Amino acid sequence: MKILLIGASGTIGKRIYDRFAQKHEIVQASRTGSDVAVDITDAVSIQKMYEAVEKIDAVICATGPAKFGPFGELTEDDFYIGIRGKMMGQVDLVRIGQRYLNDDGSFTLTTGILADDPIVGSTAVSLVNGAVNSFAMAAAIELLRNQRINVVCPTIVADSAEAYADFFPGFDPAPMDRVVNGYVRSVETKITGRILRIY
Amino acid sequence: MKILLIGASGTIGKRIYDRFAQKHEIVQASRTGSDVAVDITDAVSIQKMYEAVEKIDAVICATGPAKFGPFGELTEDDFYIGIRGKMMGQVDLVRIGQRYLNDDGSFTLTTGILADDPIVGSTAVSLVNGAVNSFAMAAAIELLRNQRINVVCPTIVADSAEAYADFFPGFDPAPMDRVVNGYVRSVETKITGRILRIY
Repeated sequence: MKILLIGASGTIGKRIYDRFAQKHEIVQASRTGSDVAVDITDAVSIQKMYEAVEKIDAVICATGPAKFGPFGELTEDDFYIGIRGKMMGQVDLVRIGQRYLNDDGSFTLTTGILADDPIVGSTAVSLVNGAVNSFAMAAAIELLRNQRINVVCPTIVADSAEAYADFFPGFDPAPMDRVVNGYVRSVETKITGRILRIY
Repeated sequence: MKILLIGASGTIGKRIYDRFAQKHEIVQASRTGSDVAVDITDAVSIQKMYEAVEKIDAVICATGPAKFGPFGELTEDDFYIGIRGKMMGQVDLVRIGQRYLNDDGSFTLTTGILADDPIVGSTAVSLVNGAVNSFAMAAAIELLRNQRINVVCPTIVADSAEAYADFFPGFDPAPMDRVVNGYVRSVETKITGRILRIY
């Protein structure tokens, strides 16, 4: 398959790349333009990316900004970092991408456990994760040409568990192989509309 | 209790008003200004509302715009109707209101079954409902002064079931008393961080 991977340089993205590159052709997209440049907060940039890469069988997004901070201090602009980033960035990858993705193609988005299990400081991130989970279930019943969509929703992941340990006390880190398996299940099986919780 | 009710003229809001008015003082807020005017899509308007009404024990929001439409046709602006309305409108009622609400006060927001069970045309509405559900769970663990927050998340409701029947085939309408009981449980018990699904 020809797979468009957005966020290949991130903690999870690097592992996704390593696994999928073993048997698929990967086109890497990022702000700085690995194979192709994209700013997912900008619908025009997303459209240009899809015009530049042709005949894609799967889109995987493993990136998207959102802001942590005490709820008593977060401004409306702080919320909009995640809304324009991890939330509408991923929505627009599907909204615009459905016209470009091949028949039988799949979208795989990324959210996280904070949709279900918040921590202190996560209001703006929980909001975005819950939004994308529900959006994906809804989009799944409307996509045409046998296209599919799923979300990988991991808990704290092993490769960054140490860095975030203080914010996620008592959260069991998921081994990277288990996390990447979520993306593999989404892309290589025929499921759709699923939130693949890696908890 | 002194209760601020936003959206008292809506299908659910009218029923909330009738029940709560039996034993509480209700201040009605709406765009056209019943007791006090508010445009929940505008943070400045929300702040002015809270400054105008004093010593509130509970805030109930039973309103918020969001747009239905085929996923293949929805624009980014269509999504932002719900994002600025039902989503950030309700977030801002809490974000700003936490400074004004009395100690031990409660926020009760409204979402709906489309967060969990989408229908054709609901991507932008499902997104918003899922967002507010996760946001409320997160805000619950950060609110100070013993303030609480819950969400009433009903299925299609009896009073508007006929009008929406074609869009919700096979959905059992919830009796209005059961729906209003969600708001009563949120306001009059001590629960917090709960999504009260009235399915």
